[in-house]
Amino acid sequence: MTERPRPFEEIAVGETRETYGRTITETDFVVHAGHTGDFFPHHMDAEFMAKSEFGGRIAHGTMIFAIGIGLTATEINPLAFSYGYDRLRFVRPVFIGDTIRTRVTAARKEDDPKRPASGRLFETVEVLNQRDEVVLACEHIYIVQKKKEAAA
Amino acid sequence: MTERPRPFEEIAVGETRETYGRTITETDFVVHAGHTGDFFPHHMDAEFMAKSEFGGRIAHGTMIFAIGIGLTATEINPLAFSYGYDRLRFVRPVFIGDTIRTRVTAARKEDDPKRPASGRLFETVEVLNQRDEVVLACEHIYIVQKKKEAAA
Amino acid sequence: MTERPRPFEEIAVGETRETYGRTITETDFVVHAGHTGDFFPHHMDAEFMAKSEFGGRIAHGTMIFAIGIGLTATEINPLAFSYGYDRLRFVRPVFIGDTIRTRVTAARKEDDPKRPASGRLFETVEVLNQRDEVVLACEHIYIVQKKKEAAA
Amino acid sequence: MTERPRPFEEIAVGETRETYGRTITETDFVVHAGHTGDFFPHHMDAEFMAKSEFGGRIAHGTMIFAIGIGLTATEINPLAFSYGYDRLRFVRPVFIGDTIRTRVTAARKEDDPKRPASGRLFETVEVLNQRDEVVLACEHIYIVQKKKEAAA
Amino acid sequence: MTERPRPFEEIAVGETRETYGRTITETDFVVHAGHTGDFFPHHMDAEFMAKSEFGGRIAHGTMIFAIGIGLTATEINPLAFSYGYDRLRFVRPVFIGDTIRTRVTAARKEDDPKRPASGRLFETVEVLNQRDEVVLACEHIYIVQKKKEAAA
Amino acid sequence: MTERPRPFEEIAVGETRETYGRTITETDFVVHAGHTGDFFPHHMDAEFMAKSEFGGRIAHGTMIFAIGIGLTATEINPLAFSYGYDRLRFVRPVFIGDTIRTRVTAARKEDDPKRPASGRLFETVEVLNQRDEVVLACEHIYIVQKKKEAAA
Repeated sequence: MTERPRPFEEIAVGETRETYGRTITETDFVVHAGHTGDFFPHHMDAEFMAKSEFGGRIAHGTMIFAIGIGLTATEINPLAFSYGYDRLRFVRPVFIGDTIRTRVTAARKEDDPKRPASGRLFETVEVLNQRDEVVLACEHIYIVQKKKEAAA
Repeated sequence: MTERPRPFEEIAVGETRETYGRTITETDFVVHAGHTGDFFPHHMDAEFMAKSEFGGRIAHGTMIFAIGIGLTATEINPLAFSYGYDRLRFVRPVFIGDTIRTRVTAARKEDDPKRPASGRLFETVEVLNQRDEVVLACEHIYIVQKKKEAAA
Repeated sequence: MTERPRPFEEIAVGETRETYGRTITETDFVVHAGHTGDFFPHHMDAEFMAKSEFGGRIAHGTMIFAIGIGLTATEINPLAFSYGYDRLRFVRPVFIGDTIRTRVTAARKEDDPKRPASGRLFETVEVLNQRDEVVLACEHIYIVQKKKEAAA
Repeated sequence: MTERPRPFEEIAVGETRETYGRTITETDFVVHAGHTGDFFPHHMDAEFMAKSEFGGRIAHGTMIFAIGIGLTATEINPLAFSYGYDRLRFVRPVFIGDTIRTRVTAARKEDDPKRPASGRLFETVEVLNQRDEVVLACEHIYIVQKKKEAAA
Repeated sequence: MTERPRPFEEIAVGETRETYGRTITETDFVVHAGHTGDFFPHHMDAEFMAKSEFGGRIAHGTMIFAIGIGLTATEINPLAFSYGYDRLRFVRPVFIGDTIRTRVTAARKEDDPKRPASGRLFETVEVLNQRDEVVLACEHIYIVQKKKEAAA
Repeated sequence: MTERPRPFEEIAVGETRETYGRTITETDFVVHAGHTGDFFPHHMDAEFMAKSEFGGRIAHGTMIFAIGIGLTATEINPLAFSYGYDRLRFVRPVFIGDTIRTRVTAARKEDDPKRPASGRLFETVEVLNQRDEVVLACEHIYIVQKKKEAAA
């Protein structure tokens, strides 16, 4: 985890980065259920899910989102903060033993209507499995200071 | 956790429900950091945050989302599945010791363009703190089978 | 988790309910050992237990009790509180990968000698595995308010 | 954790031992809720419990039982196994910050009707808080081999 | 966990003890990563490690040290405290499913230059796997009170 | 977490880096005790330690080592591996609420007697608290490939 100040102007549309991989384990299922209180049988009952169309327990969507975003938390931009997420979609199930990684791409930039000294960076976030299939996608809205403000 | 089959037609726009409360503890901060790998000082460094504008450590946005949604996981509708979330916004910081609960409101219904036998239910999800302030909001998209399909 | 006030008179002897299933994982063994401090090799040493009569690690009895009871914690009766348990027996071993669920049956009712406005409900609690074998049994003593008291 | 074989005859009624203490933390509440799935507001909602007769969150009974028993798991008697527990009672609430320890007393001995080569040892188990008040009590039934059998 | 006061003079060079075994699980990998923040792919990415010379995920060195030392924490010598460790070496990788135990040998004794009433006990600590191979070794420096001091 | 290949020649003696801070919480005490099985009252019994010379629970030495090293795990040098640690010393106690960070300094370099194509880098590792006091110190031995080898 390192700090790297990057003002709005310096981030180029099209920039992309990919995280290290992380294998999703049965432990993560148990930890996430215990952390959130969601013990639905889709995640916790191997017998029930063996008979389902999925053939096995599937990960909580909120877990893949939280871990997928967590994988990107390696570098702090002190000039930016997270505004929210749009179009969060659970594209494919994640099973115990799958290995995920996250790809973040600077998709587009806009002025921020409420903050003239900052801009809005829209990042496409894709969580991929070991077969390079997208399992979760969303758009991250990042408010980033412009140079002048950052220098103030 | 109980099962309650509810076809698309039976869910009325305007229906609302509120979960029990849950106090967000320092333990949850540590568990979430460890679960996601996000150890940013905003969540983990009390000294650093004491000097910040927030005055103390603030919860990970992904944690409030995951726990806020988890609080609603008390009843399974076997005729429905989660499609995704829109307009996820981190409205206010959550601090250690705050108590959150979640309010879900059926906001609107639409046909599902890809699945004629199902409809799309849009739920407004609001996570509230102990002062009834919204700390996180999003829109949940739920695909729910229509009666005919459900009866098949 | 929902609230459902049920006075003593409304609970009929013979009533029964069964929870969702939950697969007991190696993670649960590790979490329970760490939570309680019981690292006995029966639960934690695969080599030692491979040579034992059991053929593998067996779950802590206290864990099957705690999780078995936890599975029933889906509905709060605000007119009742837990007095204790009798005849708690560890009937069969539980192994990593077994899926348990809990069946609760209202077995008998008695006046409460110390609390005239309440009664004692004795519930038979059985934790079952995926082969419908009882692995743990006990009797739960529940103190439940009578209608008059509850209405007060 | 050490091994100490003790046949039935060598255990004297009246023998007592007391464990080290352990402070029950908010972390233990969160871990136990997550481990068992019991997120009842009595344990998890500080706001709700501040207004209750207890004045604050109270520990799960199953947690005090599991940790109280776990505290005794320091010495293995390879000639014995746990048969079950009788008269498990939650005598007083345990709050965050209380420090518990466990006292075990050999209360009485009986022949085991089903196992002539073993006997039944009944141990009184008391979990105490920092004011030496009993918070949980139960009777542990321990099946212990007699000398002849143990020597076989 | 029991208390056993042993003054410096009573500990004989050559004394050795061996702990119970403990199987290192995938859960331990996930817990240690989350506890320390070290999510390096060597420990967390099964796909990446399947292609490496190791053929699979290997345990964090700090975990084998912490658990290996933890296994010895069964008896408190109130006359002693831990000064530090020398020559800590990660001799062999530990994989998910390996079962470790720890052997501690009193290697040599010295006067403590700063504390005349105490001595320094150097213990050889070896963590072994199920094939009796040393996976981690170090020398523990233990400051132990002499009889006179201990009796004071 | 990023990858940055650095051959032996490029690392200059005197180079130093400091990690982000992390507040050591009561949760970390409970997690570490549960992870390692070390429930000694020095770490777990607030009543016992309130009366001790320390005035409160003190962190496990193995925890400060594991977290202190974990804080540095932000950048992978694929040309290097960890050989071990020397002179690990627990210099000052760490209490619940202390905030630690780690400073790593390249102290000296040597040829590796067994590996001509690599060198040994000795790093001074100091874990500091919020008052800039060293709480733990050790020397890390790092085996790093030389340029030629790395390019091979």
